[in-house]
Amino acid sequence: MTRARGTDRRASIVRAAFEVIAERGYRGTSLAAVAERVGLTQQGLMHYFPTKEDLLTAVLETRDEWDLLHFGHAPPGDESAMTVNQLADLVDYNATRPGIVQTYTVLSADSVTEDHPAREYFHDRYARVRAGMTQMLERHREELPPGTTPEQLAPIAIAVLDGLQLQWLLDPEEVDMPAGFRTFLTLLGIKPD
Amino acid sequence: MTRARGTDRRASIVRAAFEVIAERGYRGTSLAAVAERVGLTQQGLMHYFPTKEDLLTAVLETRDEWDLLHFGHAPPGDESAMTVNQLADLVDYNATRPGIVQTYTVLSADSVTEDHPAREYFHDRYARVRAGMTQMLERHREELPPGTTPEQLAPIAIAVLDGLQLQWLLDPEEVDMPAGFRTFLTLLGIKPD
Repeated sequence: MTRARGTDRRASIVRAAFEVIAERGYRGTSLAAVAERVGLTQQGLMHYFPTKEDLLTAVLETRDEWDLLHFGHAPPGDESAMTVNQLADLVDYNATRPGIVQTYTVLSADSVTEDHPAREYFHDRYARVRAGMTQMLERHREELPPGTTPEQLAPIAIAVLDGLQLQWLLDPEEVDMPAGFRTFLTLLGIKPD
Repeated sequence: MTRARGTDRRASIVRAAFEVIAERGYRGTSLAAVAERVGLTQQGLMHYFPTKEDLLTAVLETRDEWDLLHFGHAPPGDESAMTVNQLADLVDYNATRPGIVQTYTVLSADSVTEDHPAREYFHDRYARVRAGMTQMLERHREELPPGTTPEQLAPIAIAVLDGLQLQWLLDPEEVDMPAGFRTFLTLLGIKPD
């Protein structure tokens, strides 16, 4: 198989995984279900993604790229290009896709355990996202509360995003994730549109 | 067996589980390892805790009770009795026990999936902790930023605690969890001791 065809095949498997996750959530998504959707045997799919963690990590990577392109008009990996308002819009959008948010929440938490296959991915992703968030907040330095710095606030902002996702997934009637993030921005002195 | 003896036995299993978690983390903790520690067969242990999730939920419940008693001088379930300074001290303490924090992070995230055995436990725990946090912040109402309410800020404060735990577990050299929580308190206008 040529490299281009292999890349296409990987992309269609990831697309199928997005669909299965949206329909069945994290727990209902199996390699077998994704293989069936894309017309491969499970063995055939495992040629591209040997484990569920490998496949889901690729799904989350693809989501990050798509979100950056769509909300930040930025190329993959350039989290710093997103504005605060674009990020707030992304939180609104996440509130419409519990399946993928669930997948992110479960896999990122699972990755903190020893020798987890996705540990390095999440370690590096958080380092990158903290750097991007620091640069985003840098553009609001004048508005930030006295005595605080973008470097200090970046991990806190990311914690708010992650922690609100968890509470919203457990209790969507009670926890308004998008409103919570906008309230947090006002704590930073930033007025979202 | 009398009820009292059954309660004692459950308590010693939970104590043994704490030890195993501290030594081996979430992933290394199995019913078999805990059974061995407490001198039971795995079958015998499963009489008290049929699944790993049942046992770990009991561990986390016991930790909540102990933390409230120790840091908040409060009885089980009364999260509202804790002061902001006691909570900051608890975050300091958590930074010394990655095993149990890891267990909390993994299990709470896992519980968002459909039909998870610990879903109801975490759903109810978060509702209770939000109510307690709201009352804690109520005692600082004068200090809170204009236009914000304790009800609005409570889920955000809990999100900061959870989200910083995740980042700290992935990258303890880079993320200072206790300092992050204290910075968040200054965003609320609250000066911790």
